[in-house]
Amino acid sequence: MSATLRELAQEFSCRLHGDPERIIGRVGTLGGAGPDAITFLANPLYRAQLAATRAGAVILADKDREGCPTACLVHERPYATYARIAAFLHPKPGSTAGVHPSAVLAPTARVASSAEVGPQAVIGAGCTIGDSAVVGPGSVLGANVAIGAGTSLVARVTVLDGVRIGARCIVHAGAVIGADGFGFAPEAGGWVKIPQLGSVVIGDDVEIGANTTVDRGTIEDTVIEDGVKLDNLVQIAHNVRVGAHTVMAAMSGAAGSTTIGKRCMIGGGVVMIHSLEICDDAVFTFRSAVLKSVDEPGTYSGTLPAEEAARWRRNAARFRKLDELAARVTAAERLLEGLAKPQRQQKKKKGK
Amino acid sequence: MSATLRELAQEFSCRLHGDPERIIGRVGTLGGAGPDAITFLANPLYRAQLAATRAGAVILADKDREGCPTACLVHERPYATYARIAAFLHPKPGSTAGVHPSAVLAPTARVASSAEVGPQAVIGAGCTIGDSAVVGPGSVLGANVAIGAGTSLVARVTVLDGVRIGARCIVHAGAVIGADGFGFAPEAGGWVKIPQLGSVVIGDDVEIGANTTVDRGTIEDTVIEDGVKLDNLVQIAHNVRVGAHTVMAAMSGAAGSTTIGKRCMIGGGVVMIHSLEICDDAVFTFRSAVLKSVDEPGTYSGTLPAEEAARWRRNAARFRKLDELAARVTAAERLLEGLAKPQRQQKKKKGK
Amino acid sequence: MSATLRELAQEFSCRLHGDPERIIGRVGTLGGAGPDAITFLANPLYRAQLAATRAGAVILADKDREGCPTACLVHERPYATYARIAAFLHPKPGSTAGVHPSAVLAPTARVASSAEVGPQAVIGAGCTIGDSAVVGPGSVLGANVAIGAGTSLVARVTVLDGVRIGARCIVHAGAVIGADGFGFAPEAGGWVKIPQLGSVVIGDDVEIGANTTVDRGTIEDTVIEDGVKLDNLVQIAHNVRVGAHTVMAAMSGAAGSTTIGKRCMIGGGVVMIHSLEICDDAVFTFRSAVLKSVDEPGTYSGTLPAEEAARWRRNAARFRKLDELAARVTAAERLLEGLAKPQRQQKKKKGK
Repeated sequence: MSATLRELAQEFSCRLHGDPERIIGRVGTLGGAGPDAITFLANPLYRAQLAATRAGAVILADKDREGCPTACLVHERPYATYARIAAFLHPKPGSTAGVHPSAVLAPTARVASSAEVGPQAVIGAGCTIGDSAVVGPGSVLGANVAIGAGTSLVARVTVLDGVRIGARCIVHAGAVIGADGFGFAPEAGGWVKIPQLGSVVIGDDVEIGANTTVDRGTIEDTVIEDGVKLDNLVQIAHNVRVGAHTVMAAMSGAAGSTTIGKRCMIGGGVVMIHSLEICDDAVFTFRSAVLKSVDEPGTYSGTLPAEEAARWRRNAARFRKLDELAARVTAAERLLEGLAKPQRQQKKKKGK
Repeated sequence: MSATLRELAQEFSCRLHGDPERIIGRVGTLGGAGPDAITFLANPLYRAQLAATRAGAVILADKDREGCPTACLVHERPYATYARIAAFLHPKPGSTAGVHPSAVLAPTARVASSAEVGPQAVIGAGCTIGDSAVVGPGSVLGANVAIGAGTSLVARVTVLDGVRIGARCIVHAGAVIGADGFGFAPEAGGWVKIPQLGSVVIGDDVEIGANTTVDRGTIEDTVIEDGVKLDNLVQIAHNVRVGAHTVMAAMSGAAGSTTIGKRCMIGGGVVMIHSLEICDDAVFTFRSAVLKSVDEPGTYSGTLPAEEAARWRRNAARFRKLDELAARVTAAERLLEGLAKPQRQQKKKKGK
Repeated sequence: MSATLRELAQEFSCRLHGDPERIIGRVGTLGGAGPDAITFLANPLYRAQLAATRAGAVILADKDREGCPTACLVHERPYATYARIAAFLHPKPGSTAGVHPSAVLAPTARVASSAEVGPQAVIGAGCTIGDSAVVGPGSVLGANVAIGAGTSLVARVTVLDGVRIGARCIVHAGAVIGADGFGFAPEAGGWVKIPQLGSVVIGDDVEIGANTTVDRGTIEDTVIEDGVKLDNLVQIAHNVRVGAHTVMAAMSGAAGSTTIGKRCMIGGGVVMIHSLEICDDAVFTFRSAVLKSVDEPGTYSGTLPAEEAARWRRNAARFRKLDELAARVTAAERLLEGLAKPQRQQKKKKGK
């Protein structure tokens, strides 16, 4: 796809500075874009690269216009505008309606005529596949799964019995939705399995990353609300609820029955213990371990950064005796107090 | 399935308080169950909800009977009893004996006539599939894999050459059993692959979570003993042995050649470095890093909880200089000792 | 396969001590090998086991020859030599050229006649599969994927549109190469998806573990250079570059746009935040969190080891007040200084 800057400015509500007839055929990075490509500046960290860009045009905020050596499309949200222009210039290949002959459909499954079912897919009894939905190659759907309109299971996705996924979702390869939650009762030195009878309900516009796992609820359902974005290798345990528009980066997870609020931002590798209540708009930075409920929006951290190994070892050894160190400080303070008192009294006397 | 409380009490060896003819058709939560549902109280944290339950009956311990506003089934292990009653009221759909026509079986594979092989499955040469076992849709078995009676590979499970899985196991979707362990010898700035010639042996009654990986041994086998339960996204490296009835929650892992004892409880995100020996009955709390062998049963922890970010940053900055801080404390103690000595001597003199 | 020690010594350039006609049929561990097996000693930790070995022969370095009770093959790199001898004695079953009838190939896919395409595999339009490459059972390749000569996708691997994988790579089961990177622009309380238009380029001799995920780049490509080894459940985010011969153990990961140098060794569970630059030859020990760029080769650590729980809790509680503790130490030092000064002055006077 290609378009003139005039067309792009009009279509995406930008103010254009520069040649309106310049033809743009693709997107590029600030550093890598050539004259036929458009790029963007959203993160001030990259401002230094702006002056040297050879891009045909840059999408940016008005405050950055001064330093731009080429044409620009000015918008107050340059990153979101870039996202739309990139999708416009590089349209995804559309789905191809129809069921591949190698796919296996249960007779009671209902697949919309505009939906696509890829090669080697398996669709169980009672499933419903919505308009323009895609069940990608090698995907497996259990019984009574509902896939909303426009939702895409990219490839090799597993969705188990009774799971309902909303509209316009994207589920990436290898994700498993609706496996049994991890529940066992101890008995006689072993374990009795707790039947996992709930299911998983996923809202609209949700994205779920590659090899991510979302477990079914024990009695009631695990819930992923509208607009949630989960990255790769994320674990959502049974009975978790993830609030609308919350994002969870790769390798993060929430243990059983934890409720996460709306619009939270959960960094890579962040894990939450079970049964927490996390309020809306909480932010957890990279690799934190969340062990307590959070009832105030704000930013929370919990990672000690790697250091040169010898230095780390020395500090870690001290940490192992931190309680003793604190007790030593308290003892020293007391001793000091005892020493300071007579001196203070002396001073007082002298002052008299 | 439904039953009267009388029938449930009889079948599951409970003492009944309340109307024996009440019909129970399902399970529910303390908060969500209606009059046709049975629930349970096992965790004292939920005791406050007992008074308000609208459930038809509650499974509980004798000590909790007082506060129960409805019928109850009294048992000394209410959680395990709940598990059994839930399984009774909500029986899983049984397997359907037979091989789906889309499955691909090597001619030398032997599949029990009561076993089920799902659509798009692949079963390699020399495999044996036991009575009533299920090889779910999209699963792939290499050569000479043995699957025990009653074991279920839910869907899209991969089991590689020579792996033996016992009876009544459940392996959830996306799990990979028997991939090569991670072993390379350094040479000339690169790496020579160490052939991974062992296999994986899994006992009876083991459960393995979605997208979990269990690697084959380098020379001898990786071993998962009877009754072990692994959650999702767990990593078991080559030559690990996991002792009977040990549970490992999601995102935990054990590096190469570590031996874990029996009945250990390993929290979510706990990782163990290679070549450790962990004794029986050790408990590791959420997100701990285990860097040393453990030879005494007990509970071990290793996670600093996330805090409000500014507070965390201040403490983390101090941690980076903890060794210096400790040295300062020692120096201050010495100085203090020097100051306190003459004063003590003075006191002594005065005392004389 | 079997061979005499004479043949092994000759073929693998070792110096032989012991009976040249002894026949060796397999490898074994120092502790488990019998007289028909060869083992090795590379790690000094296992030296104690050498004296008791019942192996037919041991591959070892000259300095360890003294303590060896049986025949030995002396080589300065015993571990790499073991790797080669093990591969020689236990050859992998070769691939079987041809496309399984259950596989689904797009008409425009080109598969080398010596390549193997397994059962239930799916190969998209425009793919090229090199000589002797293996697309294992249940694997799914999108459009325009290139698989180099001798590369093996073991089973159920997903490789998405446009990904290029070099020669002699091994990609283990469940791995997903080329899923969308995790990029969203905030807008109106929700998120706009950033199209992920780059791809993934993987060099030669790369190994990628089970259920590992490597995301495609946002605009340019994610790059895995020659000889890189990734273990299981590793996450490589969009626009990451992993330098040649770097190894990343299980459950490690790198967030978006981080560049990792060559020959780095990244321990299990190590995670790197986004946009870092890690120099060549950096080593990160088990479970470290890397939050800053590293420009000096060396070893870096960042894990506090699990301790007995009560001890850990005490230290962790002190950590939460570490900033206050440090402030108390500073205050005590000042007070001490004030106390010490007059005394020092006194001493000075006395000295006069």
